Amino acid sequence: MGRQKVYLDKLSRFFQIRNLLLRQALAECLGTLILVMFGCGAVAQLVLSGGSHGMFLTVNFAFGFAATLGILVCGQVSGGHLNPAVTFALCLLGREPWKKFPMYFLFQTIGAFFGSAIIFGMYYDALWDHPGNFNVTGPRSTAGIFATYPGKHLTIVNGFFDQIIGTAALIVCILAIVDPYNNPIPQGLEAFTVGFVVLVIGLSMGFNSGYAVNPARDLGPRIFTAMAGWGVEVFTARNGWFLVPIFAPFLGTIIGVVIYQMMVGYHQEGEVRDQSERDEQENVRLTNVNTNNSKDGH
Amino acid sequence: MGRQKVYLDKLSRFFQIRNLLLRQALAECLGTLILVMFGCGAVAQLVLSGGSHGMFLTVNFAFGFAATLGILVCGQVSGGHLNPAVTFALCLLGREPWKKFPMYFLFQTIGAFFGSAIIFGMYYDALWDHPGNFNVTGPRSTAGIFATYPGKHLTIVNGFFDQIIGTAALIVCILAIVDPYNNPIPQGLEAFTVGFVVLVIGLSMGFNSGYAVNPARDLGPRIFTAMAGWGVEVFTARNGWFLVPIFAPFLGTIIGVVIYQMMVGYHQEGEVRDQSERDEQENVRLTNVNTNNSKDGH
Amino acid sequence: MGRQKVYLDKLSRFFQIRNLLLRQALAECLGTLILVMFGCGAVAQLVLSGGSHGMFLTVNFAFGFAATLGILVCGQVSGGHLNPAVTFALCLLGREPWKKFPMYFLFQTIGAFFGSAIIFGMYYDALWDHPGNFNVTGPRSTAGIFATYPGKHLTIVNGFFDQIIGTAALIVCILAIVDPYNNPIPQGLEAFTVGFVVLVIGLSMGFNSGYAVNPARDLGPRIFTAMAGWGVEVFTARNGWFLVPIFAPFLGTIIGVVIYQMMVGYHQEGEVRDQSERDEQENVRLTNVNTNNSKDGH
Amino acid sequence: MGRQKVYLDKLSRFFQIRNLLLRQALAECLGTLILVMFGCGAVAQLVLSGGSHGMFLTVNFAFGFAATLGILVCGQVSGGHLNPAVTFALCLLGREPWKKFPMYFLFQTIGAFFGSAIIFGMYYDALWDHPGNFNVTGPRSTAGIFATYPGKHLTIVNGFFDQIIGTAALIVCILAIVDPYNNPIPQGLEAFTVGFVVLVIGLSMGFNSGYAVNPARDLGPRIFTAMAGWGVEVFTARNGWFLVPIFAPFLGTIIGVVIYQMMVGYHQEGEVRDQSERDEQENVRLTNVNTNNSKDGH
Repeated sequence: MGRQKVYLDKLSRFFQIRNLLLRQALAECLGTLILVMFGCGAVAQLVLSGGSHGMFLTVNFAFGFAATLGILVCGQVSGGHLNPAVTFALCLLGREPWKKFPMYFLFQTIGAFFGSAIIFGMYYDALWDHPGNFNVTGPRSTAGIFATYPGKHLTIVNGFFDQIIGTAALIVCILAIVDPYNNPIPQGLEAFTVGFVVLVIGLSMGFNSGYAVNPARDLGPRIFTAMAGWGVEVFTARNGWFLVPIFAPFLGTIIGVVIYQMMVGYHQEGEVRDQSERDEQENVRLTNVNTNNSKDGH
Repeated sequence: MGRQKVYLDKLSRFFQIRNLLLRQALAECLGTLILVMFGCGAVAQLVLSGGSHGMFLTVNFAFGFAATLGILVCGQVSGGHLNPAVTFALCLLGREPWKKFPMYFLFQTIGAFFGSAIIFGMYYDALWDHPGNFNVTGPRSTAGIFATYPGKHLTIVNGFFDQIIGTAALIVCILAIVDPYNNPIPQGLEAFTVGFVVLVIGLSMGFNSGYAVNPARDLGPRIFTAMAGWGVEVFTARNGWFLVPIFAPFLGTIIGVVIYQMMVGYHQEGEVRDQSERDEQENVRLTNVNTNNSKDGH
Repeated sequence: MGRQKVYLDKLSRFFQIRNLLLRQALAECLGTLILVMFGCGAVAQLVLSGGSHGMFLTVNFAFGFAATLGILVCGQVSGGHLNPAVTFALCLLGREPWKKFPMYFLFQTIGAFFGSAIIFGMYYDALWDHPGNFNVTGPRSTAGIFATYPGKHLTIVNGFFDQIIGTAALIVCILAIVDPYNNPIPQGLEAFTVGFVVLVIGLSMGFNSGYAVNPARDLGPRIFTAMAGWGVEVFTARNGWFLVPIFAPFLGTIIGVVIYQMMVGYHQEGEVRDQSERDEQENVRLTNVNTNNSKDGH
Repeated sequence: MGRQKVYLDKLSRFFQIRNLLLRQALAECLGTLILVMFGCGAVAQLVLSGGSHGMFLTVNFAFGFAATLGILVCGQVSGGHLNPAVTFALCLLGREPWKKFPMYFLFQTIGAFFGSAIIFGMYYDALWDHPGNFNVTGPRSTAGIFATYPGKHLTIVNGFFDQIIGTAALIVCILAIVDPYNNPIPQGLEAFTVGFVVLVIGLSMGFNSGYAVNPARDLGPRIFTAMAGWGVEVFTARNGWFLVPIFAPFLGTIIGVVIYQMMVGYHQEGEVRDQSERDEQENVRLTNVNTNNSKDGH
C-alpha cells in the first residue's frame, strides 16, 4: 500500500486548484449537477414510466433530498447555494461579496446543464421508447422533464407572481436557517432543513408551473434540451415563458429578504447590537472607574 | 461594499422595533403565515389539480413540515407556538404570562389570514379554471382549501369530540417535547419533532373534518374566504361549524394538559423537587455541622 | 400569576406518585396509548374513507412516527418499550429486572385498549356510516382497524413464521440502537430511529397479516372490539389467530437476541471486556512496579 | 438475577470471535442481510399484493431506510459498507486495506443471499397464491422481487451506462459524507444520510432496471432464486443481464471517485496539506530563531 499512497499523493498535488473562487465555483457546479440530476431524474422516471414508477410526490421528495445532498457535497467549500437567487440574497445582505454572484451563476448553470445531460443519457432508450419524445408541448411532451413549462390554466402574469412567491418563501426560510443571530438548528443540519424547505415548496406550490424558483436549475437544462433535439421551441413556447424563471426569482428574493428582515431579522440584529453597545458603554464606565481609581491611588 | 454595509446598518436601526411583546407577536404572525401558506397551498394543489399533483398524504406532509419551518422562522423570538391552543397550554402551566395569550391569538390569526391570501393570489388562475370555484359546499367546492368543513358523515357532537381529541393529542406530545423535566430531544430538534406530531395527527385524525386543531389556522383563512368571494356562507355552513374549531381546541388543551401532567408530568416535577429539597436539607445539616464545628473550634 | 403558581404547586404535590415502578408503568401506558391511537387511527382513516384519505403507506408512516412519539413521551421515565417483546428482550439480556415484565405487559395492554377506544369514539359516526360496520370478516369488515387478522392467502404456520421474523428483525435493530457497546446514534435520536425501524417493517413485512409484532398492541384493541360490538368472533376468527400475535413475538425476540449477540453483540462486549482486563493487568503490573520501587526506595 | 448474569457472561466468552477481520465480515453479513431483507421485502409486498400494500415509492423508502438500519447495526464494527462498490472506493482511496475487499464482497453476498431467503420464507404462501409464481420473465413474473431485471425498453449498453451512473452518483455522495477533510454531518448521522442517498437514487434512477448499484445485493438473491425454484433462467435471461449489476458498479465507482476528487476532494486535501506544511515551515523558522537566540545567548 506504500506505493498506492505515493501515487495518490502525487495525483492530489497535480490536480489541486489553488484559486479559492474557482474551487468554490467548481464545487457549486457539482452541487447543482447533483440537484438537477436527481430532481430531473425523478421527473423523467415519472413521465417515462407513465406513472408506474413515480408520482408528483416522488418528484417533490427527489428535489428536496437532492438539494440536501447537493449542499452536503459542496457546502463546506462554497456554502452550498445551488441557486443564483440564494447567492443574490446573501450578497444583498452583505454576507457574500458581489463578485461571487456572476461566477456562481455561471457554474451553477453549467452544473444544471450537465446534470440534465446525464439524465438524458441514462433514460435515452426510455425516451426513444416513449410516444411523444422530443415534443415540447402537447399531452405526451417530454421537454418538461428538464425545464419547467406553465400549466394550461396559467397566464404569464400569474406565472410571474407564482415564481415570485415561491422564491420569496424559499428565501425567508433559508434566511431563518442561516441567520447568525437567529440560528435555531444544530450545526450540520442546515442541509437537511433546506431540503425540507424545497420539499414543502414542491408539495404546496408545484401545480402552476413546477416550482423552478431557481434560474440556474431552469436555464441550464433548457439550453441542453435546445441542443439535444427539442430545438428552439423550448425558448419560444408559451410566449417566452423561459424568461419568467430567470427573472422572477430575483424579484422574489428581494421581497423575501425584506419580509424576513422587517418581521424578524432587524429586531434580532438590533437586540444583539444594543447589547454589545451597552457592554461597550459599561466597559467605558468601568475603564473610567479604573482610571479614576488609579488616579486616586497616586 | 463599505457603502452597502452603512446603508444596511441604517436600515436595521430604522426598522428595529424595541417592544419585546410586539416583536414576538410579529414573529408569531410570520410563523403562522408560513404554516398556513404551505399547508393550505398543498390543499389547493390537491383540489385544483384534481388529484394529479397531490393526495391527502401530501397535505399531511405539507402541514407537518410547514409547522417545522414556521417554528424555525420564529421560534427563537417568540417560542414558535403558531397555535393559540399551544399558547393557552403554556399559560395554563404558568410557563408563559397570560397577557401574551390575546396578543398571540390576534397575530396568529392575522398571519393565517395573509397566508391564505398569498395562496389565493398564487392559484388565482387555477381557481377560476376550476369548475365549482367559489362554492362553499358541494362535490367540487373550493372553500375547503382554506378553512375546514366537516365530512358528510359527521354530526356536530362527534365533530366537537374530534377536535377535542386531536388537540389533546397534539398538546400531550408538545408538552412531552418541551417539558423542562422530561426533555428527551437534542437542542434544536424540537421544531422537527412538532412537525412529526402534526404529520401523524393528519395521517390518523384527518378524515372527519381535516384536523384544524388550531383556532387561528381555521379562523384567519375563513375570514379571508368570506371577504374574497365565498361570502358569509363560510360561517353559516353546516349549522355554524366554524365555532367548533375555535372553541373545541381550548377544551382539548385542558384535557391534554391534565392527562400529561397526571400520567407523566407531576411525577417528574415531584422527583426533581424532592431531589432539590433533599439537597437543601442536606445543605442545612451540613451548615449545622459546619456551624457546630466552628463553635467547637472556638 | 403568583396565585396560579401556588395552585399548580399544590396540584403537583397532590397527584405525585412516589412508587417508581407504578410511575414507569403509567408512562408506558400513555406511550402505548399514543402508539395505538395514532397507528389504528391511520388504519381507521384508510378503511373508513375507502382509500380517499389514506393508503397502506400512510399506515406505515403513522405507526412508525407514532412509535417515535410514544417513546418521546414516556422514554425518560420508563425507557419507552411500548411493546412486551422489547421488555422481554431487555430482561433476557439482564438489562431490566424480570419483575418489570408483567407490570409493563399489563399497562401496555391497558394503554393499547384505551388508544383504540379513543379512535372508536373519534370515528363513531364514520363507523356507523360505513357499510359492513361491526363485521369481523368479509370484504368490508372493520375489525381490522383495531386488531390484526391474517390475509386470505396465509396459513397459520406461515403466519406464525411471519410474526417471528418481523419481531426478530425489530429486536435486532433495536438492540443495535440501544447496545451500550455499539451505540452509533447521537443521544436523543433513538426514538426517531426506532420509528424508522417500525416504518421499514411495515413497508416490507406488512402484507401477510399487518405486522403486529407486539402482543400488547394487538391484544388490547382486540379486547376492546370484543366489548364494543364486534363480539367474541374477534377471538374465534381464523381458528384462533389472536394467539399468534401474542406468542410468536416472544419466540421472535429470542431469535433476534441470539442473532444479534452471535453476529455483533458478544464480540463488541468481549472487546470491551478484554480491553478493561488488559487495563487491570497493566494496573497490577504498575502497582507491582510501584511497590517494588517503594520497597527499593526504603 | 445473579445466576442470569453469570450465564450471560459465560455465553459471551464462549461465542466471542477474536479475529478482527472475521468479526467485521460477520457484521457486514448481518448489515447486508438487513438491507436485502427489508428492501426485497418491500418489492415482494408490492408485487404479491398486486399494488394494494405498496407502490414504487414504498420500495424506495424501504431500500433507503434499510440501508440506514443496516449501517447502524454493523457500522461501528465494520464501517457499514453493505456494498462491494463502497468497499472498492475506500480501497482505491487508500482508506481501507485491499485485503478487506474479497472478504467483504463474499460476506456481503452471503448476507444478501440469506436476506432474500428470509423474505422467500416469509411470503411463501403469498408466492404460491400469486399467478405467475416462479416465472422469471413475463408480466406476472416474481423473480424481480429478489434480483434486478432490465425494463423492456432497455438495451444492454444503456443498462450498463445506467448502472455506471447510479453507482457513480452513490459514490460521489458517500465520499462527500465520509470525507475526513469535508465532513459536514454531525457524528452519528452518516447512516441516515446514506439512507437518503439510496432513497433519492431510487426516486430518480429506478425506472430502467431497478437501481441495484450493488453487486452483492444483486448476486446473492439471484443465486438464491436459482436454487429456490426459478432455475438457471435467472442467469440466462436478457442475454446474461446478471453480469451488468456485477461489473458496471465497479466502473461507476472509479468514475465517481475521480469526479469527486477532481471537483472537491483534492482541493480540500491540498488546503489541509498546505496549511500543515506552512505550519511546519513556521516551526522550522521558529526553531532556527530559537537556536540562533540560544547561540547568541551564549
